[in-house]
Amino acid sequence: MAITLGPNQYGKAEVRLVTVNRNGPVHSIKDLTVSTSLRGDLAATHLAGDNSGVVATDTQKNIVYAFAKESPVGEIEDFALRLGRHFVREYDTITGARILIDEHGWERITVDGKPHDHSFSRAGKEKRTTAVTVDGDRTWVVSGLRDLVVLKSTGSEFHGFPRDKYTTLPETDDRVLATAVTARWRYQGPVPDWGTSFAEIRRIMLEKFATLHSYSLQQTLYAMGEAVLAERAEVAEIRLSLPNKHHFLVDLSPFGLENDNEVFYAADRPYGLIEGTVLRDDAEDAGLAW
Amino acid sequence: MAITLGPNQYGKAEVRLVTVNRNGPVHSIKDLTVSTSLRGDLAATHLAGDNSGVVATDTQKNIVYAFAKESPVGEIEDFALRLGRHFVREYDTITGARILIDEHGWERITVDGKPHDHSFSRAGKEKRTTAVTVDGDRTWVVSGLRDLVVLKSTGSEFHGFPRDKYTTLPETDDRVLATAVTARWRYQGPVPDWGTSFAEIRRIMLEKFATLHSYSLQQTLYAMGEAVLAERAEVAEIRLSLPNKHHFLVDLSPFGLENDNEVFYAADRPYGLIEGTVLRDDAEDAGLAW
Amino acid sequence: MAITLGPNQYGKAEVRLVTVNRNGPVHSIKDLTVSTSLRGDLAATHLAGDNSGVVATDTQKNIVYAFAKESPVGEIEDFALRLGRHFVREYDTITGARILIDEHGWERITVDGKPHDHSFSRAGKEKRTTAVTVDGDRTWVVSGLRDLVVLKSTGSEFHGFPRDKYTTLPETDDRVLATAVTARWRYQGPVPDWGTSFAEIRRIMLEKFATLHSYSLQQTLYAMGEAVLAERAEVAEIRLSLPNKHHFLVDLSPFGLENDNEVFYAADRPYGLIEGTVLRDDAEDAGLAW
Amino acid sequence: MAITLGPNQYGKAEVRLVTVNRNGPVHSIKDLTVSTSLRGDLAATHLAGDNSGVVATDTQKNIVYAFAKESPVGEIEDFALRLGRHFVREYDTITGARILIDEHGWERITVDGKPHDHSFSRAGKEKRTTAVTVDGDRTWVVSGLRDLVVLKSTGSEFHGFPRDKYTTLPETDDRVLATAVTARWRYQGPVPDWGTSFAEIRRIMLEKFATLHSYSLQQTLYAMGEAVLAERAEVAEIRLSLPNKHHFLVDLSPFGLENDNEVFYAADRPYGLIEGTVLRDDAEDAGLAW
Repeated sequence: MAITLGPNQYGKAEVRLVTVNRNGPVHSIKDLTVSTSLRGDLAATHLAGDNSGVVATDTQKNIVYAFAKESPVGEIEDFALRLGRHFVREYDTITGARILIDEHGWERITVDGKPHDHSFSRAGKEKRTTAVTVDGDRTWVVSGLRDLVVLKSTGSEFHGFPRDKYTTLPETDDRVLATAVTARWRYQGPVPDWGTSFAEIRRIMLEKFATLHSYSLQQTLYAMGEAVLAERAEVAEIRLSLPNKHHFLVDLSPFGLENDNEVFYAADRPYGLIEGTVLRDDAEDAGLAW
Repeated sequence: MAITLGPNQYGKAEVRLVTVNRNGPVHSIKDLTVSTSLRGDLAATHLAGDNSGVVATDTQKNIVYAFAKESPVGEIEDFALRLGRHFVREYDTITGARILIDEHGWERITVDGKPHDHSFSRAGKEKRTTAVTVDGDRTWVVSGLRDLVVLKSTGSEFHGFPRDKYTTLPETDDRVLATAVTARWRYQGPVPDWGTSFAEIRRIMLEKFATLHSYSLQQTLYAMGEAVLAERAEVAEIRLSLPNKHHFLVDLSPFGLENDNEVFYAADRPYGLIEGTVLRDDAEDAGLAW
Repeated sequence: MAITLGPNQYGKAEVRLVTVNRNGPVHSIKDLTVSTSLRGDLAATHLAGDNSGVVATDTQKNIVYAFAKESPVGEIEDFALRLGRHFVREYDTITGARILIDEHGWERITVDGKPHDHSFSRAGKEKRTTAVTVDGDRTWVVSGLRDLVVLKSTGSEFHGFPRDKYTTLPETDDRVLATAVTARWRYQGPVPDWGTSFAEIRRIMLEKFATLHSYSLQQTLYAMGEAVLAERAEVAEIRLSLPNKHHFLVDLSPFGLENDNEVFYAADRPYGLIEGTVLRDDAEDAGLAW
Repeated sequence: MAITLGPNQYGKAEVRLVTVNRNGPVHSIKDLTVSTSLRGDLAATHLAGDNSGVVATDTQKNIVYAFAKESPVGEIEDFALRLGRHFVREYDTITGARILIDEHGWERITVDGKPHDHSFSRAGKEKRTTAVTVDGDRTWVVSGLRDLVVLKSTGSEFHGFPRDKYTTLPETDDRVLATAVTARWRYQGPVPDWGTSFAEIRRIMLEKFATLHSYSLQQTLYAMGEAVLAERAEVAEIRLSLPNKHHFLVDLSPFGLENDNEVFYAADRPYGLIEGTVLRDDAEDAGLAW
């Protein structure tokens, strides 16, 4: 029996990068949170504190900022690939990298009915995300979104579930259904345009959420994923995590009032949590993507 | 010398209320966080644990939900006034009330280019707020907004400040200016429509933030407040709290790169904090409004 | 009618300062979050963007760090007074200052049963706080604590409250009582030792919370404040804010089980919120203390 | 090509359970956050909204509360095993379960120098955790802790790392080292007492953090894990995630002051993040443990 070092990585987390594109009077901005992790032959520092192969996390941060200047950031997937490949090519001890980027949205402020040249307001909590993994010459791209909060005020039922001595939940044929979508999808093959692909996948999920008459949040989850795969050939697999943000009907009967699905209590905790994967049966192997 | 009970209030904080207006197939929703506080002759419970005058906070919560059913919630100012006046009129020991409401925005999901009837997505972190105070027959309304995050990528300078042995900040004639607006304004006289007033005040502040060439965040603050008062006669006073969300220019010179206001580090802490009031010199006395 | 500038202040918020006292092998540390705000004749920057009187918030931050080196930080009240007085004395335009400090606690790590010389672990979420106001030659000190979470598993009742058509809460003669104490007390006269005073006030509040048989959280609040004033002559006034962190008895009867105050659901929102002041009737005027 | 349902699970997240043991006048309390997830043949609800196999998440919550009454909760690992096995045994469609529990610590309030019978205060942010997986007859237990914040004011160096055009970090032979420990360890074989095992592993990690003279956070991570495995035969593997909570030396030279490792700025973001695994080379296969 011996004690050994297992899988490990290290890097700089949550580098806050904002870039301004100043080509002309109409500016545009990118607001990113970038995390880098490096993998490779790192036994020496773990076992003996020998840092000769440890690219400092401070250096990783510097590279994020320098690369943002050396050429335009562009789509987050492209920027993550540039960063990840650099680390693997440049440093002998580093054989792999994992780059996570969150993009925060901004909209132009409207002045006199027109979008302003250089003034912006933040567009919600939703984030566009990517996780790029580089291992030697191979790369994987998993993109997604987070904190997209949606709600249907009708068109959702929940009944037919098993009843035993611990079951008290009434069946319902009309409830509020709300969730905060976390979606991550794995690309395979060529992706013509990361931005278009993202926008389309987001649109497909929202439309399916809105239009599906739902009998369970699981059904909604699967339908959202299936619609994405059916329309977007570049997606091999999609993973969804959907908290059921319960909106409980308030019992107004003690006050002599009926509550015909009009007044709800939005609960914090606990919440249902539905997690699932939808994939092509001939998808490429996921490798190190996740 | 004696020890006595001073100012006090109690209530139910952060009642999460979501209402669905189901008149016809096109639903609309209201998403509110309501806090109620009652004031009055409450010495008995403080000094002797005698609760005969203590309207339970649970009862206050019930009233919020019941009132949301008894008639439409409407504008948050109206709902807060209804609640506050009820508490003061209904209970002998209660002479005053303070009702705080945050409204969370939702937008319709677009399906096939059209807004959906009953499916919504959350619209950002920004909150519309009101604080209504009732004291006997008198009422005060202070409305506002919170978490409206805005940024200018140019049109902001900062120089001419005093320099002494502790001063290291360089002067700049071009910087990123970003803040998260918290604004609260006190109404006086009749307000024809709370919703319109809110929308206009918000628009005025955004347009002023966008168009003012700024020499200090204080100047921006004052100009935003002044513009509101100049255009909206129903506002007696406005208080703004503007954190300076620093976007520091990254020093890329060690890497042989110039940084012409293109690459920034968005810092978390510390941050500047600019707080100020703009008011009419003939404004009614604020009384218990704040 | 004219539009004018009202009360205003500006400063640097949440400067994170950690100091290590290295006199000898046994180190000690201080971990503070310091916020400074300056007041004075600041019309020029608000109205015209003239910053000749605006001590930059970056300079304020530098002063916090420099002062922490120039002499030992000591008690947070003393450090805040040093900072506040400096700003007012040093700068012509500045006539007042308000300094807020939170202190985060650390304990020594135990090794082989003994406290280690230079290794520490964080001691909970509770913070010791101070708010010092300087106006010309005058000063006020309000100290306190925050996030001190306490719970009694018995010794708390709640009944006798008014019942009307909106009342559904059952009366109880045995409940869990839990709260997160926020306390702020105003000092008057000489305080021999800020640290001792803090420790004693904290002890008095905890002992009263524990030993009082409570009929309402209001009663507990008053008793805690009264005990502080009765024992500590240096306290003129104390303000307490006590959220009622509800622990609801779970109804286990559907499962054929009795719940004799054994199984509780700890709710997040809404929560009761009890706020009150206990003061000496001959206390000095509070002035700008709060 | 076909689109199919991949791995999935669903359950109730963050059930807040507080139990009071009232055997005699000296009470004790348990404060847990419990999340349950079920796995099995769940295609019907995903594909067709048929919920005949979907044990409602509300029922799962009820079971958590009922089980807390039916027999004492005991150690969190035992409670999680009871819950997980119940779900798998009781419901035909459910073949697996994953139960996550966080335990929040409480200490007795001291009154007159003695611990009080039924009054408690919260003991910090640190959480004891467990993740139990049940698959048919097999079980895995991964326990751990989170948010254990530690700091060394000396005894930490960092140098010898590669320098290239993007490297600006100075080397140091004396720095503050601080982190928030997240540790999870996988048990194998019989564990005589979960509570003792937890307490010992925690003690070992703290003592190693304190006493190791560190040349990198990676070295500290490995040493902490190795010490646990060396002393505790019941641990097959341990995974540590250590954010490097940077404490940057403030440059006081502009103010004519030396800073001999005395005054630090505690930064929020970005932060280093060191993640690693230490394991026995003959450890049992991890199976579904993680």
